[in-house]
Amino acid sequence: MKAEIFSIGTELLLGNVVDTNSQFIAEQCAALGIQVYHMQTLGDNPTRVREAFQEALSHVDMIIATGGLGPTTDDLTKEMAMEAMGQKGAIHEETYARLKEQFNHEEDRIQNNIKQAIFPTNAYVLKNDRGTAPGCILLQDGKYIVLLPGPPHEMIGVFEEFKSWYLKSFKQDHLYSKTLRFTGIGESDLNALMKDLFEQRNPSIAPYAKPQEVTLRVTAFSHDAQDGLALVNEGVRQVQERVGQYIYGFDNDTLARTIFRFLQQQNLSIATAESLTGGAVAAELVEVEGISEVYKGSIVAYQDEVKERFLHVSRETLEKHSAVSRECLEEMLIGICKATGSKIGLATTGYAGPTGDVGHVWIGVRINGVNQVKELQIHGQRTQIIRRTVRQVLTLLWNVLKSVSRETIE
Amino acid sequence: MKAEIFSIGTELLLGNVVDTNSQFIAEQCAALGIQVYHMQTLGDNPTRVREAFQEALSHVDMIIATGGLGPTTDDLTKEMAMEAMGQKGAIHEETYARLKEQFNHEEDRIQNNIKQAIFPTNAYVLKNDRGTAPGCILLQDGKYIVLLPGPPHEMIGVFEEFKSWYLKSFKQDHLYSKTLRFTGIGESDLNALMKDLFEQRNPSIAPYAKPQEVTLRVTAFSHDAQDGLALVNEGVRQVQERVGQYIYGFDNDTLARTIFRFLQQQNLSIATAESLTGGAVAAELVEVEGISEVYKGSIVAYQDEVKERFLHVSRETLEKHSAVSRECLEEMLIGICKATGSKIGLATTGYAGPTGDVGHVWIGVRINGVNQVKELQIHGQRTQIIRRTVRQVLTLLWNVLKSVSRETIE
Repeated sequence: MKAEIFSIGTELLLGNVVDTNSQFIAEQCAALGIQVYHMQTLGDNPTRVREAFQEALSHVDMIIATGGLGPTTDDLTKEMAMEAMGQKGAIHEETYARLKEQFNHEEDRIQNNIKQAIFPTNAYVLKNDRGTAPGCILLQDGKYIVLLPGPPHEMIGVFEEFKSWYLKSFKQDHLYSKTLRFTGIGESDLNALMKDLFEQRNPSIAPYAKPQEVTLRVTAFSHDAQDGLALVNEGVRQVQERVGQYIYGFDNDTLARTIFRFLQQQNLSIATAESLTGGAVAAELVEVEGISEVYKGSIVAYQDEVKERFLHVSRETLEKHSAVSRECLEEMLIGICKATGSKIGLATTGYAGPTGDVGHVWIGVRINGVNQVKELQIHGQRTQIIRRTVRQVLTLLWNVLKSVSRETIE
Repeated sequence: MKAEIFSIGTELLLGNVVDTNSQFIAEQCAALGIQVYHMQTLGDNPTRVREAFQEALSHVDMIIATGGLGPTTDDLTKEMAMEAMGQKGAIHEETYARLKEQFNHEEDRIQNNIKQAIFPTNAYVLKNDRGTAPGCILLQDGKYIVLLPGPPHEMIGVFEEFKSWYLKSFKQDHLYSKTLRFTGIGESDLNALMKDLFEQRNPSIAPYAKPQEVTLRVTAFSHDAQDGLALVNEGVRQVQERVGQYIYGFDNDTLARTIFRFLQQQNLSIATAESLTGGAVAAELVEVEGISEVYKGSIVAYQDEVKERFLHVSRETLEKHSAVSRECLEEMLIGICKATGSKIGLATTGYAGPTGDVGHVWIGVRINGVNQVKELQIHGQRTQIIRRTVRQVLTLLWNVLKSVSRETIE
């Protein structure tokens, strides 16, 4: 099936909003086997929107459009789609009943929103649990216009409804997939190593866009759940065989969450001592629900006196070797474990700029009274140096944790 | 001038990448007075790209396209734009010389990239200081095709070259602008208060999209610098008159940077004690260059024992009132100032979930031995609760700093 994606809203043409809907829909379509042929962004101009629908209907089988489904006079996407298909609307009773509920049976508000309950009689209405404007699928001569609300969190919910409908209508087969998450390898290196496998189908393996993350996605179609999962597992096995050492997790895992699960299972505690990263490691860890079970806290020792007072880094070390040195890092690791009584300690120090040897960084992990230390030269702006150091030190921690077993951590 | 924006690349149709270029260009065009009429995304299919150029040339005066300028056989944007305009290319000597430099005079690599130095003889070449593929402006019968590289950081640099050319060619007038940054007010509330002023021209006032930030942008055109700046200042004055109490800074300011400048000028130091935000306040502060002058560090007291040990929160308080209480927060504020010898302390505690009264938050600032404390109920997921609390506590700090003068902080 060939499709076009429309994003509708004058605010998009003014650059007031970044359109994330198109990327989401394109990615989902790729996984569903719908071929996206073209995407376009249109303002709230009824004539142009209608013409764009008409024009696209002559090229593709399906148009998926977001935006312009609200109650105001600017919101004309559905009306123009209906005109393009030569269809008329009528009250959709089920939606009307929901609308009355949502607006507390207040007649004024219901009337202001009434157009959200009007659909052609042969349309398939897509429920919207996160807003008042439902989506819908219009049908004419074997062609489809799928209308979704513009706010991303609403769109994502309604897209799920569309997906169920699509799989039921067009695939005896269901879709199975798994996302694999990587650390310690860059996107282009990973893609280069995997390139030939990207060609195969069912299971297919493809890069999957996630900001700040390197991921692959394995997708399979099958009419049978067991068979579908087996196909996915086969794809996962192929990836693991080739680049398994860089996989830290699956689906919604984060590196911090993977680390948390390991620490929780092993009943281990951790504390951090941060100079360069200034709390950014702590901030990443505390995004994990339940982390307080294993995470004691952090000393963000930004000034040397804080390193001395709380981490017992010696004045002599600071004067002789400076705060950005193996010696200082090792004392920070010892200090944080002692001060908090934590089994595992983690520390960072370095120059983020503007002064010093910018990008010169020391990171370390202490386990079983042994320091594992790494010296790095990190490129980029201040913010990038900090973010990359966070990633590096969590990757180091994860690699160290993998290599030690429960018995050896006391 | 009426324009279309093209984003070219099959990876965009597969949803592997979020297209941020279009939004950037649309926003810049709005400020330049170029009316963006339509945007579209095309795959690396030469015929379709050529047809899209031809089609758009019949509707608009200018097409601005990103992507497909690289050296590989997939990169055909320039060739198709030239075909659409019926133009032939030749070696552009200046670019060729640069190419030879960039590739270290290695003949093989120069030949592999040679097409990046080929342009129609009447084209205006746009230098690319951040990559090897230059942009260009093609001209035919009073219509323009502007080609920019796809990688966002390269595109932004080359866009500046285009902007200079555009202002020189089409505006006797130059463009002057200032961005105003807000805190303590939401985007929709701000836009509602300002709506009528959005209609005015020269200076124009408009919302300006920035993730996690509420901003407005004042823009003016003038042939004279003094006059242009006066117009911008007039616009800024209009905004200040109406919503001045929410402005914390201009242009590239961040709230943390504004706070830093104030502390630096007043020679004040600050330290933070974070429970709920777990280092996220510290992480935001240390993104500011030079912050180590005023920022001592943070105690991320995630577990109660850390609150007791480093901040001297009493066991009794924790048992009687719990860690999420005014009493605990006040002891954290006292503790952080005492422990670090800092003049100003800042603290957070609360429930981010999954357990407890999720979203119940206490924040506070201590100055001159006085605690300023606020109780909040914050909606959202764990990550949002943390981010919003960071914003709230920095806003509280900034409001407190504004209201005290140098003399009163000892």
